[in-house]
Amino acid sequence: MWKYEKKLEYPVNITKKDLKMAKAMLAQYGGPDSELSAALRYLNQRYKMPDEKGFALLTDIGTEEIAHWEMIATIALQLMKGATIEELKANGLEGVYAQHDRSLFPTDANGVPFTTAYIESTGDFWGDLESDMAAEQRARATYEHLINLTNDPDVIAPLSFLRQREVVHYNRFKELRDYYLTKYDKDSYD
Amino acid sequence: MWKYEKKLEYPVNITKKDLKMAKAMLAQYGGPDSELSAALRYLNQRYKMPDEKGFALLTDIGTEEIAHWEMIATIALQLMKGATIEELKANGLEGVYAQHDRSLFPTDANGVPFTTAYIESTGDFWGDLESDMAAEQRARATYEHLINLTNDPDVIAPLSFLRQREVVHYNRFKELRDYYLTKYDKDSYD
Amino acid sequence: MWKYEKKLEYPVNITKKDLKMAKAMLAQYGGPDSELSAALRYLNQRYKMPDEKGFALLTDIGTEEIAHWEMIATIALQLMKGATIEELKANGLEGVYAQHDRSLFPTDANGVPFTTAYIESTGDFWGDLESDMAAEQRARATYEHLINLTNDPDVIAPLSFLRQREVVHYNRFKELRDYYLTKYDKDSYD
Amino acid sequence: MWKYEKKLEYPVNITKKDLKMAKAMLAQYGGPDSELSAALRYLNQRYKMPDEKGFALLTDIGTEEIAHWEMIATIALQLMKGATIEELKANGLEGVYAQHDRSLFPTDANGVPFTTAYIESTGDFWGDLESDMAAEQRARATYEHLINLTNDPDVIAPLSFLRQREVVHYNRFKELRDYYLTKYDKDSYD
Amino acid sequence: MWKYEKKLEYPVNITKKDLKMAKAMLAQYGGPDSELSAALRYLNQRYKMPDEKGFALLTDIGTEEIAHWEMIATIALQLMKGATIEELKANGLEGVYAQHDRSLFPTDANGVPFTTAYIESTGDFWGDLESDMAAEQRARATYEHLINLTNDPDVIAPLSFLRQREVVHYNRFKELRDYYLTKYDKDSYD
Amino acid sequence: MWKYEKKLEYPVNITKKDLKMAKAMLAQYGGPDSELSAALRYLNQRYKMPDEKGFALLTDIGTEEIAHWEMIATIALQLMKGATIEELKANGLEGVYAQHDRSLFPTDANGVPFTTAYIESTGDFWGDLESDMAAEQRARATYEHLINLTNDPDVIAPLSFLRQREVVHYNRFKELRDYYLTKYDKDSYD
Repeated sequence: MWKYEKKLEYPVNITKKDLKMAKAMLAQYGGPDSELSAALRYLNQRYKMPDEKGFALLTDIGTEEIAHWEMIATIALQLMKGATIEELKANGLEGVYAQHDRSLFPTDANGVPFTTAYIESTGDFWGDLESDMAAEQRARATYEHLINLTNDPDVIAPLSFLRQREVVHYNRFKELRDYYLTKYDKDSYD
Repeated sequence: MWKYEKKLEYPVNITKKDLKMAKAMLAQYGGPDSELSAALRYLNQRYKMPDEKGFALLTDIGTEEIAHWEMIATIALQLMKGATIEELKANGLEGVYAQHDRSLFPTDANGVPFTTAYIESTGDFWGDLESDMAAEQRARATYEHLINLTNDPDVIAPLSFLRQREVVHYNRFKELRDYYLTKYDKDSYD
Repeated sequence: MWKYEKKLEYPVNITKKDLKMAKAMLAQYGGPDSELSAALRYLNQRYKMPDEKGFALLTDIGTEEIAHWEMIATIALQLMKGATIEELKANGLEGVYAQHDRSLFPTDANGVPFTTAYIESTGDFWGDLESDMAAEQRARATYEHLINLTNDPDVIAPLSFLRQREVVHYNRFKELRDYYLTKYDKDSYD
Repeated sequence: MWKYEKKLEYPVNITKKDLKMAKAMLAQYGGPDSELSAALRYLNQRYKMPDEKGFALLTDIGTEEIAHWEMIATIALQLMKGATIEELKANGLEGVYAQHDRSLFPTDANGVPFTTAYIESTGDFWGDLESDMAAEQRARATYEHLINLTNDPDVIAPLSFLRQREVVHYNRFKELRDYYLTKYDKDSYD
Repeated sequence: MWKYEKKLEYPVNITKKDLKMAKAMLAQYGGPDSELSAALRYLNQRYKMPDEKGFALLTDIGTEEIAHWEMIATIALQLMKGATIEELKANGLEGVYAQHDRSLFPTDANGVPFTTAYIESTGDFWGDLESDMAAEQRARATYEHLINLTNDPDVIAPLSFLRQREVVHYNRFKELRDYYLTKYDKDSYD
Repeated sequence: MWKYEKKLEYPVNITKKDLKMAKAMLAQYGGPDSELSAALRYLNQRYKMPDEKGFALLTDIGTEEIAHWEMIATIALQLMKGATIEELKANGLEGVYAQHDRSLFPTDANGVPFTTAYIESTGDFWGDLESDMAAEQRARATYEHLINLTNDPDVIAPLSFLRQREVVHYNRFKELRDYYLTKYDKDSYD
């Protein structure tokens, strides 16, 4: 079970409205390589890791991804804050407004609802951990795209933090994969 | 952000294999009225509650629903534990096995991937809180169906606990709705 | 079975083109809380209402929702009437045009095809009627958003009529729920 | 707008439970070539027929398809009537029961929610009417498959009626297509 | 099996950037009536044609549609080539960029992932071939819409070629249908 | 463009009907880690590989995956050949039959239509090639599950061939990734 602590993993203080950026942020809120995908992927896979070490790592990273999802929500909402109807229309968000007012909804950046078709679970540690490494690379690339879309240092700071965490996660998943390949003598196919 | 505590909200100790029941449990793992729907619905909506009281309640219940999701995973995995290929086939699970071995995947009980099309977010507290009350009623009904599908007291005990939590949540959402209707003088339409 | 009567439930006479508004109207044509969702939800659920009174009410409202769906189609088409290719492009509708010319298609306001994942059916009258009440609240909120997106009195008039009908439906569903709670002595959980 | 008349287009009186057949019937309730697809396809396309004759035909057939959808619901429910939990399990319906009790839900026969991705609307009468003719052929084939799945004359009778209606609709769409090809001198491509 | 030949079926040499047109091209890359739909529809159906003649035709056209899919990719990429971040934003493509940089992804023109819900397979040659004829008509209409969206002769040339191929395919499917109707004496329903 | 050669990459000669196995084979026909996913993933990504070497490898493997898709179709159809209605029902395939007779349809093993939500394209070679390596590992695991589901040597032979090809592809993607990491001096993050 989980305990909520009322603070963000990294502070978010954005004061400049940017509706196009808010829309792009949905890539990480409900898109294919979003923090939501990441959280559900690891929390779902963890039961089939071959030992407690794997269970613990996937639980740990999965839990952190929920905290990242919360940061993404905060960034997107601060970027939208105080948007007028006219501003929403000028940025092509009349449809989003019609359905959700200025609330968030877990879709990708095109408005497509999130689906677990984005995540993987094979019950095979090698298949799963390679998938996790790949997912972290895609999430890193997504953060780089998002950083390219803005000049606002208040947005760049948390995005850079999040990008860096993906690099750390990639390396931790890689270490675990390598550890298991050795432990289970799978360094070559048979 | 969240902290993981390595224990279940309510203990799960199932020793009798029941593959049909494991499959039915997916209704609560990735189905329309699942614990996953519930967690994402409340954690997503909380930012648009009109005050801190609402934010806190939705965070609190949303966090508890992730813990319920974890209980559901544990129940489903214990029900499948040790299943042979022949048993999987005899229960129509050859397709699930082909795709995921004996690991879990967040689909509904028919194998359809979870989608956030199941959840709601209007940015209108009345619309959202009625939706939350309704979701709790549907989750309660789903638990009653699941309880009807088994005779195993080790399965019934956690399911009864979870059903009871839905009743509690329904009442808490209802109190919050009523509090806001009074506070914002919305007891009648205009 | 149904008989078609060639008139709208409420007249629609829009002469001012507004492509952004046409796009936003799709929220009610094929979106999560659309008239299409409403019609299918009630016509599907009606068979499991516990008595003829419930069957009749859900049939009645479900039938009216199809008529509302027809009104929405008429509004959206009148708002698009005579749009040139350049106007479509200027409003980001080049993709819609490529796939459908100026015809309608039952998607949400972002272009996502309608799915019955948006509707509910538990076979439990309490779960279903609360879901119906919540759906009417969300539809009401959606109409309020749509009204906020336009200044054209010819658009506002039918939208206000439709919003008002949702309020009426909410109250009728609430009365039925309360009647059943008393009739079946379900005023408290057991 | 529509008026409901409380009778079926063709009587349905099934007394023999057949859960496998009930499940197969979902092909016509929420499947790709279902009566629901048909109704929404024609009612959506009708606005772009080039004249009143086309509008009237598509409205007429679309309205009849809603009545067929109602017949399908009635057939499926009568086939499921009185099913025990054990019978549901023996027919692989434990998942359907968990989510919906014995109520219907608009999915295909595998449990996949209905989507308007199944229907077509090009704004081009030739494209649309050929699509309608093709849809009627697929619906006819589906009814033939359903008839092959049962020996119960009480089920076969309404299914044969419905199959026959598809043949009639195919011919009416074909006549309209041919009429327009002549009227608009489109008998050859340019 | 297939052999790749490194040339396009028809040359594509576009030098003028047009991001709105690139987005509209997705209608043919991953939309309902796209070349991808066409390829998968025919290659999937071919096994159930009643004789070798049908198998060969569907294989032949299906294989050509993959080559058309490759042409569409080339057109879309050339239309996007060298797009700056500011240009992407000005055309509402910030979300596409966030998720995919300037790479392609098989979605429709609204960003909805491709699904085989768009294709048909009844195992009935009449149903299938009418569906194929209808699909070619819809693809023809889509190409006409795309041609209407541009003035660039370098874009119009390959689109006109592709439109013309749909007309040829329509006629070849029609001939096969008519041949089978005679061969199997199905010129009238029974 | 592609040329079809009328032979399979590896011979398939199955004479023993096995409907459960046919259903499980759909995992590779239209499932998340299917040959269809693989073909579309590589053919879509190839345009953004940084040089001709990458384009050629992805085209090559993508083309081979279409040939594998064809083998999967052949295996599944041979496993279903001659199935009676009673046999289809006994294996829970009455729904598949209702919708498709005994033809194939690109769904996963639970009947869920294929979607490109299963594939990835980031425009970042590292992200894409890690995703491709992971996809090959998942496909390998899927083949191992399928092999576990049968004792028929005529089924095992082509499945073992296909599993082996995934291993080869994994290594080729890995070599390409390593080559690019060196070439572009990306052996560490910055």
